[in-house]
Amino acid sequence: MDRLGTVAIVGVGLIGGSVGLALRARGLADRVVGVGRDPARLALAKKLGAIDDIAPDLVRGVVQADVAVVCTPVSQIAEECLRIAAAGPEGLLITDAGSTKSAIVRAVEADPRARSMFCAAHPIAGSERHGVASARADLFEGRAVVLTPTDRTPSDRLRRATAFWRALDAQVLTMRPDRHDAALALTSHLPHAVASALAGAIPVEMLPLAGGAYRDVTRVAASDPSLWTEIFLANRGSMVAALAAFRSRLEMFSRLLAEGDSAGLVAWWNEAKAIRDQFSFDPPGSDDPRQAPGPSR
Amino acid sequence: MDRLGTVAIVGVGLIGGSVGLALRARGLADRVVGVGRDPARLALAKKLGAIDDIAPDLVRGVVQADVAVVCTPVSQIAEECLRIAAAGPEGLLITDAGSTKSAIVRAVEADPRARSMFCAAHPIAGSERHGVASARADLFEGRAVVLTPTDRTPSDRLRRATAFWRALDAQVLTMRPDRHDAALALTSHLPHAVASALAGAIPVEMLPLAGGAYRDVTRVAASDPSLWTEIFLANRGSMVAALAAFRSRLEMFSRLLAEGDSAGLVAWWNEAKAIRDQFSFDPPGSDDPRQAPGPSR
Repeated sequence: MDRLGTVAIVGVGLIGGSVGLALRARGLADRVVGVGRDPARLALAKKLGAIDDIAPDLVRGVVQADVAVVCTPVSQIAEECLRIAAAGPEGLLITDAGSTKSAIVRAVEADPRARSMFCAAHPIAGSERHGVASARADLFEGRAVVLTPTDRTPSDRLRRATAFWRALDAQVLTMRPDRHDAALALTSHLPHAVASALAGAIPVEMLPLAGGAYRDVTRVAASDPSLWTEIFLANRGSMVAALAAFRSRLEMFSRLLAEGDSAGLVAWWNEAKAIRDQFSFDPPGSDDPRQAPGPSR
Repeated sequence: MDRLGTVAIVGVGLIGGSVGLALRARGLADRVVGVGRDPARLALAKKLGAIDDIAPDLVRGVVQADVAVVCTPVSQIAEECLRIAAAGPEGLLITDAGSTKSAIVRAVEADPRARSMFCAAHPIAGSERHGVASARADLFEGRAVVLTPTDRTPSDRLRRATAFWRALDAQVLTMRPDRHDAALALTSHLPHAVASALAGAIPVEMLPLAGGAYRDVTRVAASDPSLWTEIFLANRGSMVAALAAFRSRLEMFSRLLAEGDSAGLVAWWNEAKAIRDQFSFDPPGSDDPRQAPGPSR
Protein backbone atom coordinates (compact mmCIF):
# COMPACT_ATOMS: atom_id res chain seq x y z
CA MET A 1 0.00 0.00 0.00
CA ASP A 2 1.29 3.51 -0.83
CA ARG A 3 1.63 5.76 2.14
CA LEU A 4 -1.71 7.43 2.85
CA GLY A 5 -2.24 11.14 3.35
CA THR A 6 -4.96 11.79 5.90
CA VAL A 7 -6.95 9.00 7.53
CA ALA A 8 -10.07 10.06 9.43
CA ILE A 9 -11.24 7.78 12.22
CA VAL A 10 -14.88 8.35 13.10
CA GLY A 11 -15.47 6.99 16.58
CA VAL A 12 -12.22 6.56 18.49
CA GLY A 13 -12.98 3.78 20.96
CA LEU A 14 -11.39 0.34 21.29
CA ILE A 15 -11.54 -0.43 17.54
CA GLY A 16 -11.07 3.07 16.15
CA GLY A 17 -8.27 3.74 18.62
CA SER A 18 -6.57 0.49 17.64
CA VAL A 19 -6.80 1.44 13.95
CA GLY A 20 -5.11 4.73 14.81
CA LEU A 21 -2.39 3.13 16.92
CA ALA A 22 -1.74 0.53 14.22
CA LEU A 23 -1.52 3.15 11.45
CA ARG A 24 0.81 5.37 13.46
CA ALA A 25 3.00 2.51 14.73
CA ARG A 26 3.57 1.46 11.13
CA GLY A 27 3.93 4.98 9.70
CA LEU A 28 1.22 4.26 7.15
CA ALA A 29 -0.32 7.74 7.01
CA ASP A 30 0.81 11.36 7.03
CA ARG A 31 -1.87 12.22 9.53
CA VAL A 32 -4.54 10.41 11.54
CA VAL A 33 -7.45 12.61 12.61
CA GLY A 34 -10.10 11.64 15.12
CA VAL A 35 -13.76 12.54 14.77
CA GLY A 36 -16.21 12.13 17.62
CA ARG A 37 -18.79 13.71 19.84
CA ASP A 38 -16.97 13.59 23.15
CA PRO A 39 -14.05 16.04 23.40
CA ALA A 40 -12.66 14.33 26.51
CA ARG A 41 -12.52 10.98 24.78
CA LEU A 42 -10.82 12.50 21.73
CA ALA A 43 -8.31 14.27 23.98
CA LEU A 44 -7.51 10.93 25.63
CA ALA A 45 -7.11 9.31 22.19
CA LYS A 46 -4.62 11.99 21.22
CA LYS A 47 -2.76 11.69 24.50
CA LEU A 48 -2.50 7.91 24.05
CA GLY A 49 -1.12 8.36 20.54
CA ALA A 50 -4.10 6.88 18.71
CA ILE A 51 -4.59 10.06 16.61
CA ASP A 52 -2.42 12.99 15.58
CA ASP A 53 -5.19 15.56 15.68
CA ILE A 54 -8.77 16.10 16.70
CA ALA A 55 -11.08 17.26 13.92
CA PRO A 56 -13.39 20.11 14.94
CA ASP A 57 -16.29 18.32 13.26
CA LEU A 58 -17.02 15.49 10.86
CA VAL A 59 -16.98 17.64 7.72
CA ARG A 60 -13.58 19.14 8.45
CA GLY A 61 -12.31 15.73 9.52
CA VAL A 62 -13.00 14.05 6.20
CA VAL A 63 -12.84 16.89 3.66
CA GLN A 64 -9.23 16.20 2.76
CA ALA A 65 -9.01 12.55 3.75
CA ASP A 66 -7.86 9.59 1.67
CA VAL A 67 -9.61 7.10 3.93
CA ALA A 68 -12.43 7.39 6.45
CA VAL A 69 -12.87 4.48 8.88
CA VAL A 70 -16.23 4.45 10.67
CA CYS A 71 -15.92 2.77 14.06
CA THR A 72 -19.11 3.94 15.76
CA PRO A 73 -21.78 1.59 17.18
CA VAL A 74 -23.57 -0.32 14.39
CA SER A 75 -26.79 1.67 14.57
CA GLN A 76 -24.92 4.86 13.59
CA ILE A 77 -22.58 3.55 10.90
CA ALA A 78 -24.78 3.90 7.80
CA GLU A 79 -25.79 7.44 8.64
CA GLU A 80 -22.16 8.46 9.32
CA CYS A 81 -21.14 6.96 5.97
CA LEU A 82 -23.74 9.06 4.13
CA ARG A 83 -22.60 12.23 5.87
CA ILE A 84 -18.95 11.42 5.17
CA ALA A 85 -19.68 10.74 1.49
CA ALA A 86 -21.43 14.08 1.14
CA ALA A 87 -18.52 15.95 2.73
CA GLY A 88 -15.51 13.98 1.47
CA PRO A 89 -13.50 14.26 -1.73
CA GLU A 90 -14.28 12.19 -4.85
CA GLY A 91 -11.36 9.83 -4.22
CA LEU A 92 -12.25 8.97 -0.62
CA LEU A 93 -12.37 5.34 0.53
CA ILE A 94 -14.97 4.80 3.23
CA THR A 95 -14.74 1.59 5.22
CA ASP A 96 -16.17 0.62 8.59
CA ALA A 97 -15.82 -1.80 11.47
CA GLY A 98 -19.42 -2.82 12.15
CA SER A 99 -20.18 -6.29 13.52
CA THR A 100 -23.24 -6.67 11.26
CA LYS A 101 -23.19 -5.86 7.58
CA SER A 102 -26.45 -6.39 5.61
CA ALA A 103 -28.41 -3.42 6.94
CA ILE A 104 -25.41 -1.07 6.74
CA VAL A 105 -24.51 -2.08 3.18
CA ARG A 106 -28.13 -1.77 2.07
CA ALA A 107 -28.49 1.73 3.52
CA VAL A 108 -25.16 3.01 2.19
CA GLU A 109 -25.70 1.54 -1.29
CA ALA A 110 -29.04 3.33 -1.58
CA ASP A 111 -27.01 6.53 -1.98
CA PRO A 112 -25.05 6.63 -5.28
CA ARG A 113 -22.24 8.86 -4.04
CA ALA A 114 -21.73 6.88 -0.83
CA ARG A 115 -21.91 3.62 -2.79
CA SER A 116 -19.09 4.79 -5.10
CA MET A 117 -16.75 5.27 -2.11
CA PHE A 118 -17.69 2.41 0.22
CA CYS A 119 -16.33 -1.02 1.00
CA ALA A 120 -17.78 -2.52 4.19
CA ALA A 121 -15.52 -4.31 6.66
CA HIS A 122 -15.72 -6.21 9.92
CA PRO A 123 -12.50 -6.78 11.84
CA ILE A 124 -13.02 -9.83 14.05
CA ALA A 125 -11.10 -8.46 16.96
CA GLY A 126 -12.25 -6.92 20.17
CA SER A 127 -12.61 -7.34 23.85
CA GLU A 128 -15.17 -7.17 26.59
CA ARG A 129 -13.55 -3.84 27.38
CA HIS A 130 -14.29 -0.74 25.42
CA GLY A 131 -12.83 2.72 25.06
CA VAL A 132 -9.59 3.97 23.62
CA ALA A 133 -7.72 3.16 26.84
CA SER A 134 -7.99 -0.52 25.88
CA ALA A 135 -6.88 0.04 22.28
CA ARG A 136 -3.79 -1.78 21.01
CA ALA A 137 -1.55 -1.28 17.99
CA ASP A 138 -1.51 -5.05 17.43
CA LEU A 139 -5.24 -5.68 17.80
CA PHE A 140 -5.67 -6.72 14.15
CA GLU A 141 -2.46 -8.70 13.73
CA GLY A 142 -3.32 -12.12 12.36
CA ARG A 143 -7.03 -11.48 12.96
CA ALA A 144 -9.64 -11.93 10.23
CA VAL A 145 -11.15 -8.84 8.67
CA VAL A 146 -14.18 -9.69 6.57
CA LEU A 147 -14.93 -7.39 3.65
CA THR A 148 -18.48 -7.66 2.34
CA PRO A 149 -18.47 -6.15 -1.16
CA THR A 150 -21.50 -6.53 -3.45
CA ASP A 151 -21.89 -6.31 -7.24
CA ARG A 152 -22.21 -2.58 -6.77
CA THR A 153 -18.94 -2.06 -4.86
CA PRO A 154 -16.37 -0.34 -7.11
CA SER A 155 -13.46 -2.73 -7.67
CA ASP A 156 -10.89 -0.06 -6.82
CA ARG A 157 -12.53 0.52 -3.43
CA LEU A 158 -12.44 -3.23 -2.75
CA ARG A 159 -8.78 -3.25 -3.72
CA ARG A 160 -7.95 -0.24 -1.54
CA ALA A 161 -9.92 -1.57 1.46
CA THR A 162 -8.10 -4.90 1.13
CA ALA A 163 -4.72 -3.11 1.08
CA PHE A 164 -5.74 -0.92 4.03
CA TRP A 165 -6.69 -3.74 6.38
CA ARG A 166 -3.80 -5.92 5.21
CA ALA A 167 -1.43 -3.09 6.06
CA LEU A 168 -2.63 -3.47 9.69
CA ASP A 169 -1.53 -7.14 9.39
CA ALA A 170 -5.06 -8.51 9.29
CA GLN A 171 -6.06 -11.51 7.21
CA VAL A 172 -8.63 -10.24 4.73
CA LEU A 173 -11.56 -12.43 3.67
CA THR A 174 -14.47 -11.45 1.43
CA MET A 175 -18.05 -12.64 1.80
CA ARG A 176 -21.58 -11.54 0.87
CA PRO A 177 -23.15 -9.35 3.59
CA ASP A 178 -25.96 -11.79 4.32
CA ARG A 179 -23.58 -14.74 4.59
CA HIS A 180 -21.36 -12.72 6.89
CA ASP A 181 -24.30 -11.97 9.16
CA ALA A 182 -25.46 -15.59 9.27
CA ALA A 183 -21.94 -16.80 10.11
CA LEU A 184 -21.24 -14.14 12.71
CA ALA A 185 -24.58 -14.80 14.39
CA LEU A 186 -23.17 -18.26 15.13
CA THR A 187 -19.52 -17.48 15.79
CA SER A 188 -19.90 -14.26 17.78
CA HIS A 189 -23.40 -12.99 18.52
CA LEU A 190 -24.75 -16.31 19.81
CA PRO A 191 -21.74 -16.84 22.13
CA HIS A 192 -22.38 -13.41 23.60
CA ALA A 193 -26.08 -14.11 24.17
CA VAL A 194 -25.31 -17.51 25.70
CA ALA A 195 -22.63 -16.07 27.98
CA SER A 196 -25.03 -13.43 29.20
CA ALA A 197 -27.92 -15.88 29.67
CA LEU A 198 -25.60 -18.03 31.77
CA ALA A 199 -24.28 -15.12 33.83
CA GLY A 200 -27.87 -14.06 34.49
CA ALA A 201 -28.88 -17.55 35.66
CA ILE A 202 -26.29 -17.88 38.44
CA PRO A 203 -27.05 -15.99 41.66
CA VAL A 204 -24.34 -13.66 42.89
CA GLU A 205 -24.10 -15.45 46.27
CA MET A 206 -22.84 -18.56 44.47
CA LEU A 207 -19.86 -16.82 42.87
CA PRO A 208 -17.42 -17.95 45.58
CA LEU A 209 -18.06 -21.45 44.23
CA ALA A 210 -17.34 -20.49 40.63
CA GLY A 211 -14.02 -21.24 39.00
CA GLY A 212 -12.27 -21.13 35.67
CA ALA A 213 -15.15 -22.52 33.62
CA TYR A 214 -17.53 -19.85 34.89
CA ARG A 215 -14.89 -17.16 34.40
CA ASP A 216 -14.32 -18.01 30.75
CA VAL A 217 -17.84 -18.93 29.67
CA THR A 218 -19.24 -15.69 31.10
CA ARG A 219 -16.34 -13.33 30.35
CA VAL A 220 -18.05 -11.49 27.49
CA ALA A 221 -21.17 -10.94 29.62
CA ALA A 222 -19.21 -7.97 31.00
CA SER A 223 -19.34 -6.30 27.57
CA ASP A 224 -21.17 -3.08 26.80
CA PRO A 225 -24.98 -3.55 26.96
CA SER A 226 -26.12 -1.04 24.34
CA LEU A 227 -23.45 -2.06 21.87
CA TRP A 228 -24.59 -5.68 22.02
CA THR A 229 -28.29 -4.86 22.01
CA GLU A 230 -27.74 -2.98 18.76
CA ILE A 231 -25.87 -5.88 17.22
CA PHE A 232 -28.55 -8.41 18.22
CA LEU A 233 -31.32 -6.23 16.79
CA ALA A 234 -29.39 -5.46 13.60
CA ASN A 235 -28.94 -9.20 13.04
CA ARG A 236 -32.26 -10.46 14.35
CA GLY A 237 -33.08 -12.94 11.58
CA SER A 238 -29.74 -14.71 11.74
CA MET A 239 -29.83 -14.68 15.54
CA VAL A 240 -33.12 -16.55 15.57
CA ALA A 241 -31.59 -19.28 13.39
CA ALA A 242 -28.43 -19.42 15.50
CA LEU A 243 -30.46 -19.70 18.71
CA ALA A 244 -32.44 -22.58 17.22
CA ALA A 245 -29.22 -24.47 16.39
CA PHE A 246 -27.94 -23.96 19.93
CA ARG A 247 -31.23 -24.90 21.55
CA SER A 248 -31.33 -28.11 19.56
CA ARG A 249 -27.86 -29.14 20.87
CA LEU A 250 -28.89 -28.27 24.42
CA GLU A 251 -32.15 -30.24 24.16
CA MET A 252 -30.18 -33.22 22.94
CA PHE A 253 -28.08 -32.95 26.11
CA SER A 254 -31.17 -32.68 28.33
CA ARG A 255 -32.69 -35.77 26.75
CA LEU A 256 -29.52 -37.86 27.07
CA LEU A 257 -29.18 -36.72 30.69
CA ALA A 258 -32.80 -37.59 31.50
CA GLU A 259 -32.31 -41.02 29.95
CA GLY A 260 -29.03 -41.53 31.85
CA ASP A 261 -27.46 -42.35 28.50
CA SER A 262 -23.77 -42.38 29.33
CA ALA A 263 -22.55 -43.47 25.89
CA GLY A 264 -24.84 -40.91 24.24
CA LEU A 265 -23.48 -38.12 26.44
CA VAL A 266 -19.90 -39.08 25.64
CA ALA A 267 -20.72 -39.07 21.91
CA TRP A 268 -22.54 -35.71 22.25
CA TRP A 269 -19.55 -34.24 24.07
CA ASN A 270 -17.07 -35.69 21.56
CA GLU A 271 -18.90 -34.18 18.58
CA ALA A 272 -18.44 -30.73 20.08
CA LYS A 273 -14.89 -31.41 21.25
CA ALA A 274 -13.88 -32.54 17.74
CA ILE A 275 -14.97 -29.14 16.42
CA ARG A 276 -13.45 -27.14 19.27
CA ASP A 277 -10.14 -28.98 18.97
CA GLN A 278 -9.80 -27.58 15.44
CA PHE A 279 -10.00 -24.00 16.61
CA SER A 280 -6.79 -22.13 17.11
CA PHE A 281 -6.46 -18.56 18.14
CA ASP A 282 -3.40 -16.84 19.45
CA PRO A 283 -4.17 -13.41 20.78
CA PRO A 284 -1.47 -11.05 19.59
CA GLY A 285 1.20 -10.42 22.16
CA SER A 286 -0.42 -12.95 24.45
CA ASP A 287 1.42 -15.22 26.79
CA ASP A 288 -1.57 -16.80 28.40
CA PRO A 289 -0.61 -19.55 30.83
CA ARG A 290 -3.99 -21.19 30.43
CA GLN A 291 -3.42 -21.64 26.70
CA ALA A 292 0.13 -22.88 26.86
CA PRO A 293 0.66 -26.56 27.66
CA GLY A 294 3.06 -26.59 30.49
CA PRO A 295 4.50 -28.37 33.47
CA SER A 296 4.01 -27.23 37.01
CA ARG A 297 5.11 -23.73 37.84
CA MET B 1 -0.75 -28.55 60.60
CA ASP B 2 1.88 -30.91 62.02
CA ARG B 3 4.15 -32.43 59.43
CA LEU B 4 2.48 -35.53 57.99
CA GLY B 5 4.09 -38.92 57.66
CA THR B 6 2.91 -40.69 54.53
CA VAL B 7 0.27 -39.23 52.21
CA ALA B 8 -1.20 -41.60 49.63
CA ILE B 9 -2.59 -40.05 46.45
CA VAL B 10 -4.99 -42.36 44.67
CA GLY B 11 -5.25 -41.25 41.05
CA VAL B 12 -2.32 -39.06 40.06
CA GLY B 13 -3.73 -36.89 37.26
CA LEU B 14 -4.14 -33.12 37.11
CA ILE B 15 -5.64 -32.83 40.61
CA GLY B 16 -3.81 -35.67 42.34
CA GLY B 17 -0.54 -34.59 40.76
CA SER B 18 -1.10 -31.02 41.91
CA VAL B 19 -1.78 -32.23 45.49
CA GLY B 20 1.51 -34.11 45.36
CA LEU B 21 3.48 -31.17 43.94
CA ALA B 22 1.92 -28.82 46.50
CA LEU B 23 2.73 -31.14 49.43
CA ARG B 24 6.31 -31.66 48.29
CA ALA B 25 6.95 -28.00 47.43
CA ARG B 26 5.89 -27.10 50.98
CA GLY B 27 7.65 -30.00 52.70
CA LEU B 28 4.38 -30.99 54.38
CA ALA B 29 4.89 -34.76 54.38
CA ASP B 30 7.68 -37.26 54.94
CA ARG B 31 6.63 -39.20 51.89
CA VAL B 32 4.04 -38.90 49.11
CA VAL B 33 3.11 -42.18 47.46
CA GLY B 34 1.13 -42.54 44.27
CA VAL B 35 -1.47 -45.23 43.69
CA GLY B 36 -2.91 -45.93 40.26
CA ARG B 37 -3.59 -48.46 37.55
CA ASP B 38 -1.30 -47.17 34.85
CA PRO B 39 2.42 -47.73 35.59
CA ALA B 40 3.49 -45.31 32.83
CA ARG B 41 1.42 -42.50 34.28
CA LEU B 42 2.77 -43.15 37.78
CA ALA B 43 6.33 -43.18 36.43
CA LEU B 44 5.69 -39.82 34.81
CA ALA B 45 4.24 -38.47 38.07
CA LYS B 46 7.40 -39.54 39.89
CA LYS B 47 9.64 -38.07 37.20
CA LEU B 48 7.77 -34.75 37.42
CA GLY B 49 8.19 -34.69 41.19
CA ALA B 50 4.51 -35.12 42.06
CA ILE B 51 5.19 -38.22 44.17
CA ASP B 52 8.19 -39.68 45.99
CA ASP B 53 7.30 -43.29 45.36
CA ILE B 54 4.95 -45.55 43.46
CA ALA B 55 2.91 -47.92 45.61
CA PRO B 56 2.80 -51.48 44.25
CA ASP B 57 -0.94 -51.59 44.93
CA LEU B 58 -3.66 -49.72 46.83
CA VAL B 59 -3.35 -51.77 50.02
CA ARG B 60 0.39 -51.24 50.33
CA GLY B 61 -0.05 -47.60 49.39
CA VAL B 62 -2.36 -46.78 52.28
CA VAL B 63 -1.46 -49.31 54.96
CA GLN B 64 0.89 -46.91 56.74
CA ALA B 65 -0.56 -43.61 55.55
CA ASP B 66 -1.72 -40.64 57.63
CA VAL B 67 -3.83 -39.25 54.81
CA ALA B 68 -5.29 -40.76 51.64
CA VAL B 69 -6.51 -38.35 48.97
CA VAL B 70 -8.77 -39.93 46.35
CA CYS B 71 -8.48 -38.07 43.04
CA THR B 72 -9.99 -40.60 40.65
CA PRO B 73 -13.00 -39.89 38.38
CA VAL B 74 -16.19 -39.38 40.42
CA SER B 75 -17.73 -42.75 39.56
CA GLN B 76 -14.83 -44.57 41.26
CA ILE B 77 -14.33 -42.45 44.36
CA ALA B 78 -16.77 -44.10 46.78
CA GLU B 79 -15.51 -47.58 45.97
CA GLU B 80 -11.87 -46.52 46.37
CA CYS B 81 -12.72 -44.95 49.75
CA LEU B 82 -14.23 -48.21 50.97
CA ARG B 83 -11.18 -50.21 49.86
CA ILE B 84 -8.84 -47.69 51.46
CA ALA B 85 -10.79 -47.75 54.74
CA ALA B 86 -10.57 -51.52 54.86
CA ALA B 87 -6.80 -51.50 54.28
CA GLY B 88 -5.73 -48.36 56.13
CA PRO B 89 -4.81 -47.80 59.77
CA GLU B 90 -7.35 -46.66 62.37
CA GLY B 91 -6.02 -43.10 62.38
CA LEU B 92 -6.22 -42.57 58.62
CA LEU B 93 -7.89 -39.45 57.21
CA ILE B 94 -9.57 -40.13 53.87
CA THR B 95 -10.49 -37.14 51.76
CA ASP B 96 -11.25 -36.78 48.05
CA ALA B 97 -11.45 -34.32 45.19
CA GLY B 98 -14.71 -35.28 43.50
CA SER B 99 -16.77 -32.62 41.71
CA THR B 100 -20.04 -34.05 43.03
CA LYS B 101 -20.58 -34.99 46.65
CA SER B 102 -24.02 -36.37 47.62
CA ALA B 103 -23.72 -39.82 46.05
CA ILE B 104 -20.13 -40.28 47.23
CA VAL B 105 -20.88 -39.23 50.82
CA ARG B 106 -23.96 -41.45 50.95
CA ALA B 107 -22.03 -44.49 49.72
CA VAL B 108 -19.04 -43.97 52.00
CA GLU B 109 -21.17 -43.26 55.08
CA ALA B 110 -23.03 -46.51 54.60
CA ASP B 111 -19.83 -48.22 55.78
CA PRO B 112 -19.07 -47.54 59.48
CA ARG B 113 -15.28 -47.90 59.21
CA ALA B 114 -15.06 -45.71 56.10
CA ARG B 115 -17.41 -43.16 57.71
CA SER B 116 -15.14 -42.88 60.75
CA MET B 117 -12.20 -41.84 58.55
CA PHE B 118 -13.81 -39.73 55.86
CA CYS B 119 -14.27 -36.03 55.19
CA ALA B 120 -15.38 -35.27 51.61
CA ALA B 121 -13.80 -32.39 49.71
CA HIS B 122 -14.06 -30.64 46.37
CA PRO B 123 -11.23 -28.34 45.34
CA ILE B 124 -12.65 -25.85 42.83
CA ALA B 125 -9.61 -25.81 40.63
CA GLY B 126 -8.87 -27.47 37.38
CA SER B 127 -8.41 -27.00 33.73
CA GLU B 128 -9.69 -28.28 30.41
CA ARG B 129 -6.44 -30.21 30.35
CA HIS B 130 -5.94 -33.38 32.27
CA GLY B 131 -3.06 -35.59 33.28
CA VAL B 132 -0.16 -35.11 35.63
CA ALA B 133 1.80 -33.20 32.97
CA SER B 134 -0.57 -30.26 33.55
CA ALA B 135 -0.35 -30.45 37.35
CA ARG B 136 0.88 -27.40 39.25
CA ALA B 137 2.16 -26.89 42.78
CA ASP B 138 0.08 -23.70 43.03
CA LEU B 139 -3.18 -25.06 41.64
CA PHE B 140 -5.04 -24.67 44.95
CA GLU B 141 -3.57 -21.35 46.07
CA GLY B 142 -6.42 -18.99 46.88
CA ARG B 143 -8.93 -21.41 45.36
CA ALA B 144 -12.01 -22.58 47.24
CA VAL B 145 -12.05 -26.11 48.58
CA VAL B 146 -15.52 -27.12 49.73
CA LEU B 147 -15.71 -29.69 52.53
CA THR B 148 -19.09 -31.40 52.81
CA PRO B 149 -19.23 -32.95 56.28
CA THR B 150 -22.49 -34.37 57.64
CA ASP B 151 -23.73 -35.04 61.18
CA ARG B 152 -21.92 -38.34 60.96
CA THR B 153 -18.50 -36.94 60.03
CA PRO B 154 -16.12 -37.25 63.02
CA SER B 155 -15.15 -33.77 64.14
CA ASP B 156 -11.45 -34.62 64.23
CA ARG B 157 -11.57 -35.72 60.58
CA LEU B 158 -13.26 -32.42 59.64
CA ARG B 159 -10.55 -30.58 61.57
CA ARG B 160 -7.74 -32.55 59.94
CA ALA B 161 -9.22 -32.22 56.43
CA THR B 162 -9.55 -28.46 56.97
CA ALA B 163 -5.91 -28.24 58.05
CA PHE B 164 -4.80 -30.42 55.14
CA TRP B 165 -6.42 -28.34 52.39
CA ARG B 166 -5.50 -25.07 54.10
CA ALA B 167 -1.89 -26.20 54.15
CA LEU B 168 -2.07 -26.20 50.32
CA ASP B 169 -3.17 -22.54 50.59
CA ALA B 170 -6.76 -23.21 49.62
CA GLN B 171 -9.69 -21.32 51.14
CA VAL B 172 -11.79 -23.92 52.94
CA LEU B 173 -15.59 -23.65 53.00
CA THR B 174 -18.05 -26.15 54.43
CA MET B 175 -21.46 -26.98 53.05
CA ARG B 176 -24.02 -29.81 53.08
CA PRO B 177 -23.42 -32.29 50.22
CA ASP B 178 -26.78 -31.61 48.57
CA ARG B 179 -26.29 -27.86 48.73
CA HIS B 180 -22.83 -28.25 47.26
CA ASP B 181 -24.22 -30.26 44.36
CA ALA B 182 -27.00 -27.76 43.65
CA ALA B 183 -24.55 -24.85 43.70
CA LEU B 184 -21.92 -26.57 41.60
CA ALA B 185 -24.52 -27.61 39.04
CA LEU B 186 -24.97 -23.88 38.44
CA THR B 187 -21.43 -22.60 38.83
CA SER B 188 -19.53 -25.38 37.08
CA HIS B 189 -21.52 -28.23 35.54
CA LEU B 190 -24.01 -26.02 33.68
CA PRO B 191 -21.23 -23.82 32.22
CA HIS B 192 -19.56 -26.97 30.90
CA ALA B 193 -22.78 -28.25 29.31
CA VAL B 194 -23.52 -24.84 27.79
CA ALA B 195 -19.99 -24.49 26.41
CA SER B 196 -20.23 -27.90 24.82
CA ALA B 197 -23.73 -27.28 23.40
CA LEU B 198 -22.41 -24.09 21.83
CA ALA B 199 -19.28 -25.71 20.43
CA GLY B 200 -21.46 -28.43 18.91
CA ALA B 201 -23.79 -25.90 17.26
CA ILE B 202 -21.13 -24.06 15.26
CA PRO B 203 -19.91 -25.82 12.09
CA VAL B 204 -16.16 -26.29 11.80
CA GLU B 205 -16.02 -24.39 8.50
CA MET B 206 -17.07 -21.24 10.32
CA LEU B 207 -14.18 -21.29 12.78
CA PRO B 208 -12.05 -18.84 10.74
CA LEU B 209 -14.75 -16.29 11.60
CA ALA B 210 -14.62 -17.02 15.32
CA GLY B 211 -12.74 -14.79 17.72
CA GLY B 212 -12.14 -14.23 21.39
CA ALA B 213 -15.76 -14.70 22.49
CA TYR B 214 -15.97 -18.11 20.84
CA ARG B 215 -12.57 -19.05 22.23
CA ASP B 216 -13.50 -18.31 25.82
CA VAL B 217 -17.13 -19.45 25.85
CA THR B 218 -16.20 -22.83 24.35
CA ARG B 219 -12.82 -23.39 26.04
CA VAL B 220 -14.01 -26.07 28.46
CA ALA B 221 -15.70 -27.99 25.63
CA ALA B 222 -12.21 -29.39 25.03
CA SER B 223 -12.35 -31.14 28.45
CA ASP B 224 -12.37 -34.88 28.94
CA PRO B 225 -15.67 -36.45 27.75
CA SER B 226 -15.98 -39.37 30.14
CA LEU B 227 -15.00 -37.31 33.15
CA TRP B 228 -17.78 -34.82 32.43
CA THR B 229 -20.34 -37.42 31.51
CA GLU B 230 -19.78 -38.98 34.93
CA ILE B 231 -20.19 -35.65 36.67
CA PHE B 232 -23.42 -34.82 34.82
CA LEU B 233 -24.90 -38.23 35.62
CA ALA B 234 -23.78 -38.11 39.25
CA ASN B 235 -25.51 -34.74 39.62
CA ARG B 236 -28.51 -35.31 37.40
CA GLY B 237 -31.21 -33.82 39.62
CA SER B 238 -29.37 -30.57 40.24
CA MET B 239 -28.40 -30.36 36.57
CA VAL B 240 -32.05 -30.47 35.51
CA ALA B 241 -32.81 -27.52 37.80
CA ALA B 242 -29.76 -25.61 36.60
CA LEU B 243 -30.70 -26.17 32.96
CA ALA B 244 -34.18 -24.86 33.65
CA ALA B 245 -32.78 -21.65 35.15
CA PHE B 246 -30.53 -21.15 32.14
CA ARG B 247 -33.27 -21.92 29.63
CA SER B 248 -35.53 -19.41 31.27
CA ARG B 249 -32.91 -16.62 30.85
CA LEU B 250 -32.35 -17.62 27.24
CA GLU B 251 -36.09 -17.66 26.46
CA MET B 252 -36.36 -14.18 27.94
CA PHE B 253 -33.68 -13.09 25.49
CA SER B 254 -35.45 -14.75 22.55
CA ARG B 255 -38.71 -13.06 23.44
CA LEU B 256 -37.14 -9.61 23.79
CA LEU B 257 -35.31 -10.11 20.51
CA ALA B 258 -38.49 -11.18 18.69
CA GLU B 259 -40.27 -8.13 20.06
CA GLY B 260 -37.39 -5.85 19.06
CA ASP B 261 -37.41 -4.59 22.65
CA SER B 262 -34.21 -2.59 22.82
CA ALA B 263 -34.72 -1.28 26.38
CA GLY B 264 -35.68 -4.77 27.53
CA LEU B 265 -32.54 -6.29 25.99
CA VAL B 266 -30.34 -3.66 27.65
CA ALA B 267 -32.01 -4.40 31.01
CA TRP B 268 -31.64 -8.15 30.46
CA TRP B 269 -27.96 -7.73 29.63
CA ASN B 270 -27.36 -5.40 32.57
CA GLU B 271 -28.85 -7.86 35.07
CA ALA B 272 -26.28 -10.44 34.01
CA LYS B 273 -23.45 -7.93 33.78
CA ALA B 274 -24.14 -6.71 37.33
CA ILE B 275 -23.61 -10.27 38.57
CA ARG B 276 -20.59 -10.97 36.38
CA ASP B 277 -18.92 -7.72 37.40
CA GLN B 278 -18.86 -8.99 41.00
CA PHE B 279 -16.86 -12.06 40.10
CA SER B 280 -13.15 -11.95 40.62
CA PHE B 281 -10.75 -14.74 39.99
CA ASP B 282 -7.02 -14.53 39.66
CA PRO B 283 -5.51 -17.74 38.46
CA PRO B 284 -2.38 -18.42 40.50
CA GLY B 285 0.80 -17.42 38.75
CA SER B 286 -1.21 -15.93 35.94
CA ASP B 287 -0.23 -12.89 33.98
CA ASP B 288 -3.05 -12.96 31.50
CA PRO B 289 -3.02 -9.96 29.19
CA ARG B 290 -6.74 -10.31 28.56
CA GLN B 291 -7.47 -9.86 32.26
CA ALA B 292 -5.19 -6.93 32.88
CA PRO B 293 -6.42 -3.49 31.91
CA GLY B 294 -3.74 -2.09 29.75
CA PRO B 295 -2.70 0.39 27.14
CA SER B 296 -1.59 -0.56 23.66
CA ARG B 297 1.29 -2.94 23.35
